[in-house]
Amino acid sequence: MKDQLKNHILKFVSPPESDLQTFLDAMTFETLKNKESLIKQGQYCKHQYFILKGCLRSFFVNEKGVEKIVNFGIENWWLTNIDSFINQTPSKLNIQAAEDSIVLKINKQKLDTILKDSLELNRYFRIILEKVRIADQRRIQFIYNLSGEELYSIFCKHNPDFVQRVPQYMLASYLGFTPEFLSKIRGRKKI
Amino acid sequence: MKDQLKNHILKFVSPPESDLQTFLDAMTFETLKNKESLIKQGQYCKHQYFILKGCLRSFFVNEKGVEKIVNFGIENWWLTNIDSFINQTPSKLNIQAAEDSIVLKINKQKLDTILKDSLELNRYFRIILEKVRIADQRRIQFIYNLSGEELYSIFCKHNPDFVQRVPQYMLASYLGFTPEFLSKIRGRKKI
Repeated sequence: MKDQLKNHILKFVSPPESDLQTFLDAMTFETLKNKESLIKQGQYCKHQYFILKGCLRSFFVNEKGVEKIVNFGIENWWLTNIDSFINQTPSKLNIQAAEDSIVLKINKQKLDTILKDSLELNRYFRIILEKVRIADQRRIQFIYNLSGEELYSIFCKHNPDFVQRVPQYMLASYLGFTPEFLSKIRGRKKI
Repeated sequence: MKDQLKNHILKFVSPPESDLQTFLDAMTFETLKNKESLIKQGQYCKHQYFILKGCLRSFFVNEKGVEKIVNFGIENWWLTNIDSFINQTPSKLNIQAAEDSIVLKINKQKLDTILKDSLELNRYFRIILEKVRIADQRRIQFIYNLSGEELYSIFCKHNPDFVQRVPQYMLASYLGFTPEFLSKIRGRKKI
């Protein structure tokens, strides 16, 4: 199954076989049942995760006990709490499986060692981060400029499969709605 | 003045002198008066900009004619419209000087060529993008969880100098407020 990650890397860069093998050898599998946690608020996030199968979400629980979803990740996405991972501070987010999932993970020490030497793997992570930055920037623009209904409509257009996979209350949380508001929008769209 | 960028790079990575020199040689100066544009909506964003002096903002104007600020950049920050720059699509954002400013810029072709070969400069941009990702993620968490008053208070705490530098109406736009709402919050804080 590590071939799935190998193919993802080779879509973007062309590392020497030895770099690629060292990187893949450093990655280990973790299997999660739906709702099982990878990271809990307050723990240190020591790994980057590449999702082979399933769906994960990162979220926090606010003072009112309401769950707020910050990110989702599905197959072939990298996911971590980057703040905790890079700065080695306690995580303010939980990462939990939203379906039965399988991930590959690499710890910070091993990743840092590999990235000291490998030009192409640095390029790979730089390119991935550029894509992530584009997505974050679009999201901020959408939040600032779209009505709830427009936001939902654009999200569905860009992520049709995803909307089918994820429970509605999670989608509502990710979009910053209450579940009731999302039901109302969906009701209107069917008319 | 290119030493300022050189020192910024050397804070994070240790490129061979030849890589560093090639990179610095590829960068050219641009001087902007306050309110002068680097990029206008609809143009292609062909450069990445490193701010040597001053302050720039990226923003769009929505259908109602209201200006929405997506990002600010000050000294030692990189700024571009990454969506337009990476995907070579027309920019949906304007980038404009918010003070008299001096930037260094590099075009995509030159940057791509350099990043094909330089391990350390890839590491540099990867590290910068990780920091940017952390900031974007915190911002999304704040937007989803804080009241306007809390958002303003945290922003002031983290960016005290910046709050002094930028006109209030721009700060309001960046935080997603109307100028009137920001005045109200500021009024309450002084009591």
